[in-house]
Amino acid sequence: MIRNATLPDGRRHDIEIGDGRIAAFLPPTPAEPVFVLPPLIDGHIHLDKTLLGLPWVPNQATGPNVSDRIEAERKVRASRTVSETETGANLVRQVVASGTLHMRSHVDIDNQLGLKNLHAVLEVREKFRDLVTIEIVAFPQSGIARSPGTAKLLDEAIAAGADLVGGLDPVGIDGDLDGHLDAIFGIASRRGVGIDIHLHDSGEGGLAEVMAIAERTRANGLKGKVAISHAFALGSVSPELTKRAADLLAETGVAIMSHGPGAAAMPPVKLLKEHGVEVFSGSDNIRDAWSPFGNGDMLERAMLVGYRANFRHDDELGLAYEMVTAAPARVLGLKDYGIRIGGPADFVAVEAGTLVEAVAARPRRKWVMKAGRVVARDGVLTPP
Amino acid sequence: MIRNATLPDGRRHDIEIGDGRIAAFLPPTPAEPVFVLPPLIDGHIHLDKTLLGLPWVPNQATGPNVSDRIEAERKVRASRTVSETETGANLVRQVVASGTLHMRSHVDIDNQLGLKNLHAVLEVREKFRDLVTIEIVAFPQSGIARSPGTAKLLDEAIAAGADLVGGLDPVGIDGDLDGHLDAIFGIASRRGVGIDIHLHDSGEGGLAEVMAIAERTRANGLKGKVAISHAFALGSVSPELTKRAADLLAETGVAIMSHGPGAAAMPPVKLLKEHGVEVFSGSDNIRDAWSPFGNGDMLERAMLVGYRANFRHDDELGLAYEMVTAAPARVLGLKDYGIRIGGPADFVAVEAGTLVEAVAARPRRKWVMKAGRVVARDGVLTPP
Repeated sequence: MIRNATLPDGRRHDIEIGDGRIAAFLPPTPAEPVFVLPPLIDGHIHLDKTLLGLPWVPNQATGPNVSDRIEAERKVRASRTVSETETGANLVRQVVASGTLHMRSHVDIDNQLGLKNLHAVLEVREKFRDLVTIEIVAFPQSGIARSPGTAKLLDEAIAAGADLVGGLDPVGIDGDLDGHLDAIFGIASRRGVGIDIHLHDSGEGGLAEVMAIAERTRANGLKGKVAISHAFALGSVSPELTKRAADLLAETGVAIMSHGPGAAAMPPVKLLKEHGVEVFSGSDNIRDAWSPFGNGDMLERAMLVGYRANFRHDDELGLAYEMVTAAPARVLGLKDYGIRIGGPADFVAVEAGTLVEAVAARPRRKWVMKAGRVVARDGVLTPP
Repeated sequence: MIRNATLPDGRRHDIEIGDGRIAAFLPPTPAEPVFVLPPLIDGHIHLDKTLLGLPWVPNQATGPNVSDRIEAERKVRASRTVSETETGANLVRQVVASGTLHMRSHVDIDNQLGLKNLHAVLEVREKFRDLVTIEIVAFPQSGIARSPGTAKLLDEAIAAGADLVGGLDPVGIDGDLDGHLDAIFGIASRRGVGIDIHLHDSGEGGLAEVMAIAERTRANGLKGKVAISHAFALGSVSPELTKRAADLLAETGVAIMSHGPGAAAMPPVKLLKEHGVEVFSGSDNIRDAWSPFGNGDMLERAMLVGYRANFRHDDELGLAYEMVTAAPARVLGLKDYGIRIGGPADFVAVEAGTLVEAVAARPRRKWVMKAGRVVARDGVLTPP
């Protein structure tokens, strides 16, 4: 029984729990009040990249481009003394303690790495299977044309347990829009999986890639199974072009992931949502060779999205909240999600008076509950 | 004695303290290691605006402009049931617990408010005088020409205890560049005080105001005593124009404050610094009628500045750190600041291995020390 809980919609109840599920909402009885949220969802994380738990590793990129950072990551990877399994586990522990119980992790695959990182993340997924659900995207971080053999590896990754196929800047990295999309849509169609493609390419060129991905999604009957991550292009062209793209994305059922980029153009998530596009969020890089920042806290991420999008009103903060809860739940296809009778007894308890206050203030997590068991208190996992 | 402390420069020492000051750096002896920083400094806060400690107050602005937000704040102020003295004290407690021991607060003054908010903040300053130094800027939030009588009130505010005179968008709000600058530079010259002017005006028009402020600074012999807060214009014009402005700002000794704006153009702080301009940071709005965000944590602010500026390398994170420590110390004219023999025994202890890790990860504050006394532990003030 969770006593005197305020739900995200403002109702106050005692919540009766049975067999790890919500059995009933009862009238509240006197107790220390608590505000409960459903579990947070990280729609874009890189469990294999993080260096969390290691002594500080300075960023080594020698230039500002995606390709410079790919090179820098190779150097960092070569000098690693701790396995991706260990650092990935460190990150899972940290994000679970902050209230995230579902995530989509991209995992690097190229012709040097092979499926090494995939196996590391599969191991992490298995280790934490009772605590968190981890969807895996086979991500060609070095490109496909640019890293010969990668297409075959992506296909093998799906066979080995990855859930979706990824992609990366078809023009900016591979210089071959059709070739890149042929490869990933081919795998997705053959294997019956979805797609989540990293697209940093900006301006009207990047927008043409957005449109091409949407058209391919329609042609391949993949409505609702394709996402574009970052999609900076949507924030860097005229509003007219963005609206046209938004209509096509809504019609073809392609979702947009934004982590609230620090300096890059941010997709206009409110406009996209108003046009019927599914928008969701994720942490992206967390203390890795790409970025020194990030901590995996999805309430902080909602704040960052809101801050970058110039959100100030309650309904806008509500959209930022949706981007770390219900929206990624739909994108990840989570059937068993949300606070309702019969739903899982999964909760995050915070000190807040309202939902939007929880986003704006990002209060400490008093406790995190999974299937009726408290799995973390005050930001630290509790022993099983 | 603080044992086994790592200083920001990486040296490890036991720190001997006597009479509230640093008496000696001794060889480290075995103890739980601790990373210590000098106190954080908030170069731009609004102690009279915050609604911290009140139940959630939704943002009420009906439009996106500065003038819309001025109107919205009037409504919020009229329905306040708790005094600015109380909410300002709530904020001081929170920022001190996060390690900030010096700040510059702007205080609203207009022909409706008179000096009411100034007296509230003077009371807060007196209440916390042993804990924190508070510099006060008499800030014409409703403009000067637009709010007749305000010029006289600003002058009276200096006589009543404010330390600097403020300003606000001479063109965007008052529509009178020379009139606005005549008023504030007149008061500054007569009273022998500095200036810190809010400038949201953007583009080449805003840049012309930046240049005009710098020229006035030179003409009035106020080198090193003038700051421009926000200065979005510097981030919204061509690099050539920005560089020309940077050279003039450096030459005339005008500092630039950036809080790392969420959506507005950010001044290129690294370029400015390279051109010799003093750049510093502050929280700006913290849970008030202007913004739902902000918490007064200046390590988080350094992260936000770095995130918005696309900082990834250690030297860049070092600049973000300087913007919340040594740089505002210079701007505020703090003579007694910094970790050195004879300096004040003022420290913030965090769990970090290096300085840049402290910025990137914003670890919890283990304790905050003022003049040799621990004034906060784990984010909560300790009883005096």
